[in-house]
Amino acid sequence: LNRQIAALPTTIFTVMSELARAHDAINLGQGFPDTEGPHDMVQAAADALLDGRNQYAPLTGLPELRRAVADSNARFQGLEIDAESEVVVTSGATEALAASLMALIEPGDEVVLIEPLYDTYLPMVRQLGGVPKLVRLEEPGWTLPREALAAAFSARTKAILLNTPMNPTGKVFTTEELDFIAGLLIQHDAYAVCDEVYEHLTFGTPHVSLMSRPAMRERCLRIGSAGKSFSLTGWKVGYVTAPAPLAAVVAKAHQNLVFATAPNLQRAVAFGLNKDEQYFRDLAGDMARKRDILSAGLRGVGLDVLPCDGSYFVMADITPLANGLDDVAFARMLTEEAGVTTIPASAFYDSSNGTPPKHLVRFAFCKQESVLQEAVARIERWA
Amino acid sequence: LNRQIAALPTTIFTVMSELARAHDAINLGQGFPDTEGPHDMVQAAADALLDGRNQYAPLTGLPELRRAVADSNARFQGLEIDAESEVVVTSGATEALAASLMALIEPGDEVVLIEPLYDTYLPMVRQLGGVPKLVRLEEPGWTLPREALAAAFSARTKAILLNTPMNPTGKVFTTEELDFIAGLLIQHDAYAVCDEVYEHLTFGTPHVSLMSRPAMRERCLRIGSAGKSFSLTGWKVGYVTAPAPLAAVVAKAHQNLVFATAPNLQRAVAFGLNKDEQYFRDLAGDMARKRDILSAGLRGVGLDVLPCDGSYFVMADITPLANGLDDVAFARMLTEEAGVTTIPASAFYDSSNGTPPKHLVRFAFCKQESVLQEAVARIERWA
Ligand SMILES: CSCCC(=O)C(=O)O
Ligand SMILES: CSCCC(=O)C(=O)O
Repeated sequence: LNRQIAALPTTIFTVMSELARAHDAINLGQGFPDTEGPHDMVQAAADALLDGRNQYAPLTGLPELRRAVADSNARFQGLEIDAESEVVVTSGATEALAASLMALIEPGDEVVLIEPLYDTYLPMVRQLGGVPKLVRLEEPGWTLPREALAAAFSARTKAILLNTPMNPTGKVFTTEELDFIAGLLIQHDAYAVCDEVYEHLTFGTPHVSLMSRPAMRERCLRIGSAGKSFSLTGWKVGYVTAPAPLAAVVAKAHQNLVFATAPNLQRAVAFGLNKDEQYFRDLAGDMARKRDILSAGLRGVGLDVLPCDGSYFVMADITPLANGLDDVAFARMLTEEAGVTTIPASAFYDSSNGTPPKHLVRFAFCKQESVLQEAVARIERWA
Repeated sequence: LNRQIAALPTTIFTVMSELARAHDAINLGQGFPDTEGPHDMVQAAADALLDGRNQYAPLTGLPELRRAVADSNARFQGLEIDAESEVVVTSGATEALAASLMALIEPGDEVVLIEPLYDTYLPMVRQLGGVPKLVRLEEPGWTLPREALAAAFSARTKAILLNTPMNPTGKVFTTEELDFIAGLLIQHDAYAVCDEVYEHLTFGTPHVSLMSRPAMRERCLRIGSAGKSFSLTGWKVGYVTAPAPLAAVVAKAHQNLVFATAPNLQRAVAFGLNKDEQYFRDLAGDMARKRDILSAGLRGVGLDVLPCDGSYFVMADITPLANGLDDVAFARMLTEEAGVTTIPASAFYDSSNGTPPKHLVRFAFCKQESVLQEAVARIERWA
C-alpha cells in the first residue's frame, strides 16, 4: 500500500467527534454549525431535486452557480471574474484545495505554509511531492513574523497557501500583511492558494482577499465554500476562482478526482450566493455574538482567550486549568470529565518545524448560544 | 503549473457533449440516462434535506448507507462485508477510483490496464507515478488475450484495474476469465481495483465480481456507483468495498480529497440499495431492450455492431459508412451532419500501446426508446 497515505493519522476532527459521541460531550471540536442553513436554500435544493435534472452537471459547474460566484467576487472583493472560464465548482473546499495544489505543484516545488494550519494542507502538499516551508505565527497575538516569512521563500517556491480568515486561530490578515505577502510573490514569481472559506465570517474587521490586491489577480487561486457561507457543511459545494489559464488546469485535476457535483445542491448554492448583503451581515453578526459569549464564558472560568476576528474558532490558553497536562491530555480529560470537546492545537502544527505549543486548545463557537453557555457551565462545574 | 495535468486533454465526454449541444444533436456520447431515477429515491433525498441533517456526514459515510452497501454485496455477490470497517462512501465512482489508486500505488509500481479503457484510468495512474502496462482486448469479440495479460504482470505489479461490465465495450467478463486473472494476482501477489459501476446492468449474463472468486476477498477493492445503479448520475455517490486494512487507507486518501458526501443523497441511496430484486431486474431488462433497439437500428443502416452484454454502451464498426474517414472525423461528421453524437473509440486507447483502432465509435443506449429510434432515423436519412 502507499506508505505515505497509510501512515496518515485519521483526521483529528473525526477522532475528537467520535470521542465526543462516546462521552455524550458537547462537541466544540469539529467546526460545523448545530443549526440549519437558510430554509429557503434547503427548499431550493429540494425543489431542484424534484424538477428532474439529476444527471451529470457540467465539469466546471452549472452556469448559474459560476455566474453567482463571479458576481459575489465582484460584490464583496471588487474582482471582475469571467464566469465561463475563471470559476470551477468542486465537491467542497477540500477538493478545491486538492485540485488547486495538483494544478500547481510538481515534485520538488516548495510551498510556503503558515502554522498553525488546517490538517489537510501538509499531507496534500507532501503527497504531491511538494516541499513544505513552514512559518509559525507568534502567539498570543498571532503575529506574522515577516522576516521568517521572507526567508521561507526561495527560487524554488511555487506557491504560498494562505488561509484568511484563518482556521484555527481566528486571525484575519490585514491589508498590510497581504501586501507584504504580495511583494514576496512578485519577487519570487510565485502563486497563492487562498483558502477563504470563512470570507463572510469576520467580526468588525473586513475580509480582504489577497486576489484583490494590486498585481495579485493573476497569481491567486481563491477558494470559497458554500458549507461555511451558508451553514450547510454537509453539502460539500466549493468553488475556485482563478485566472483562466490556471482555472483550466484546476478543472483538469477536478476532472479525474471527482468530475462534477450534484446539480440540485449547485442550484441552491447559486440561489444562496445571490442573497442580499443583509444575509451575510446577519451571518457574521450572529457568529460574532457567539464568539463573545464563548470567549467571555471561557475567561470567566479562568482560561486565557486569544484574539479572534473571524472564522468559527477561537484558541484558549489552558495553562490556568491544565495542571501541567499538555493540550492532548487536557482535551481528552475535558471531554471525559467535563463533557466538552475541543481540538488540541498541537494537531495544527508539524513537529518538523520545532516543538508545537502544548498549551492551546481550539474551541468552535458555531453553536447555539444555549449550547455555548451549557459548555461553559460544564467547564465551570468541572474546574 | 503541473505539466502532466496541464497537458491532459479535456475529457472526450465533455468535448462531445458540447459539440452535441452546439449542433442540437441527439447525444449518444456521454453515458447518462435521459430519464430520471426512481421517484421514491428523489423524494427521499428531498425529504432528507428538509429534516435537518445538512452538516458533515461521517468521513466513511452514513452508517445506514454503509450497511446498505454491505447488504447489497451479500445479496448480489454472496460477499460478507463489515459495514463498519469495509465500506467507504465517496463522491462518485471517479473519486472512489482516485482514492483507491492513491491507497495502492507508489511511484514505480506497475498497474495492469485493459484497453479500451475509461478515460480517467491512465492519467490517474500516471499522476501517481504508476507505470501502466496495457493489454488490448481483441475485437470484434472483445477477447481477452491471456498470454499477453500474463506477460503484463511482473514482480513490480501492484494491481490490475478491471472494469466489468466494461465501458466502452459492453463486455462482461466470464467466470473463467476472472479466475485466470485471479491466478495471476495470486502468482504476483497483486491487488485488483474492480470498477463495477455497471454491476446491475447485464443482459442475460450475470455479473460476477472478481471479489467473490476464491482467494480474491482480500485482494480486491470493489467500486460501485449509485449514479449508474439508479440512473442518477448527477448525484455523484459512489462506494468502495474492500478488506478492512485496505479500506482504512482508502478512507485516508478520501479524507484529504473530499472528506465526505452530502448526507441527504447518501440517505436516499441507502433507500435505493434496499429496493427489492425486481427493481434491479427491471433496470437491466429496460436497458437490454434499449440495447436491442439501438443495435437493430444501427445494423439496419449498415453498421456492424459489436457484441454487448452489459453497461450503457455498444461499439459499432463504422467502416461501411465512413468513406475512409477515421473515427474522430466520422464522429464529428455524424454530429454535424446527421445530428447524432457518439464517442470515437480511439479516445479509449493509448497510442503508446500501438495504433488504436480507427474504425469504431461508441454509442450510449441509456436513452428513451423514441430517442434511440430518432437517432437511427437521422443516421438513415443522412446515410
Ligand atoms: C472536514 S471536518 C473539519 C471541519 C473544519 O473545518 C474544522 O473543524 O476545522
Ligand atoms: C463522467 S462523464 C462520462 C460518463 C461515462 O461514464 C461515459 O460516458 O463513459
